[in-house]
Amino acid sequence: MRVLGVDPGLTRCGVGVVDGAVGKPLRMIEAGVVRTPADATIDARLLGIEQGIEEWLERHRPDCVAVERVFSQHNVSTVMGTAQASAVAIVCAARRGLPVTLHTPSEVKAAVTGSGRADKAQIGAMVTRILRLDGPPKPADAADAVALAICHIWRGGASDRLAAAVAAARTPAGRLPRGTRR
Amino acid sequence: MRVLGVDPGLTRCGVGVVDGAVGKPLRMIEAGVVRTPADATIDARLLGIEQGIEEWLERHRPDCVAVERVFSQHNVSTVMGTAQASAVAIVCAARRGLPVTLHTPSEVKAAVTGSGRADKAQIGAMVTRILRLDGPPKPADAADAVALAICHIWRGGASDRLAAAVAAARTPAGRLPRGTRR
Repeated sequence: MRVLGVDPGLTRCGVGVVDGAVGKPLRMIEAGVVRTPADATIDARLLGIEQGIEEWLERHRPDCVAVERVFSQHNVSTVMGTAQASAVAIVCAARRGLPVTLHTPSEVKAAVTGSGRADKAQIGAMVTRILRLDGPPKPADAADAVALAICHIWRGGASDRLAAAVAAARTPAGRLPRGTRR
Repeated sequence: MRVLGVDPGLTRCGVGVVDGAVGKPLRMIEAGVVRTPADATIDARLLGIEQGIEEWLERHRPDCVAVERVFSQHNVSTVMGTAQASAVAIVCAARRGLPVTLHTPSEVKAAVTGSGRADKAQIGAMVTRILRLDGPPKPADAADAVALAICHIWRGGASDRLAAAVAAARTPAGRLPRGTRR
């Protein structure tokens, strides 16, 4: 299973692609950020995020997309932009028929560090260890996106496989459902 | 100038198209809502809103889009969905090269009723009067979207024309900028 993790944001939208399955070693394919200039208009910024996410989907063809769930109680000053960036990422995936799953920040932290209250450094250290990297993906938003993808494989893999099997059973023979790859 | 007004929301996204110019009678072309089921997943809902907005843009070919500005301090329970729906509408317009303008609820109220604190009934009454309708567009979200379009024509028209003139001056002769119609 190949997962694109997205840590939504207007200034730096973290993106990370991880290949793997529960019980097998995971492999990081690529991690980075989609940036938009803080002085651009909101329409230009959201369009830039759409183009960036589309490039990542096109280049890596993930089987599913994991997006961080945004809460209204945190970071009131940036939460609207974060919610808007997440909407763009979700629509890009949905348009391709890819399953989208939201994970909360504490689910992600708990999945990769064992603690729902881990800090950025701890997440970076565990991402480095789990993926056998020389150092954590930079910047931190890229590492967070990779952690989301790891969390999704470890937590959500089973439900994705079930959904794919149900979809396949409902699809006429010889035609794969949209977003499914042989 | 033809304006599509969008009052963003996940359950009922208000949409209204108004033709007109400052100092001339305005004409309502169509008003309605894009609905998505409350029990659907967020990816299905945002995709539904994208498809709905695309249909309205395709059918009415507006010159610009006016979207209500979402604030994080209001309606905490629904604000995330509202922000996400607004992002989808903004990206649909930006992708076509249409200018997008955000107006606050009080700017809209002040534009159509003279008071930034007008209630829904007052907005409906003034929209009816300004557009010479038999009654206010229903539901209220459609009337709000129409009020946004009216507000945009009366407030933002000048800045749109300026932006279009600047864009035209920068474009090589014979080639109109994207989104401009002869």
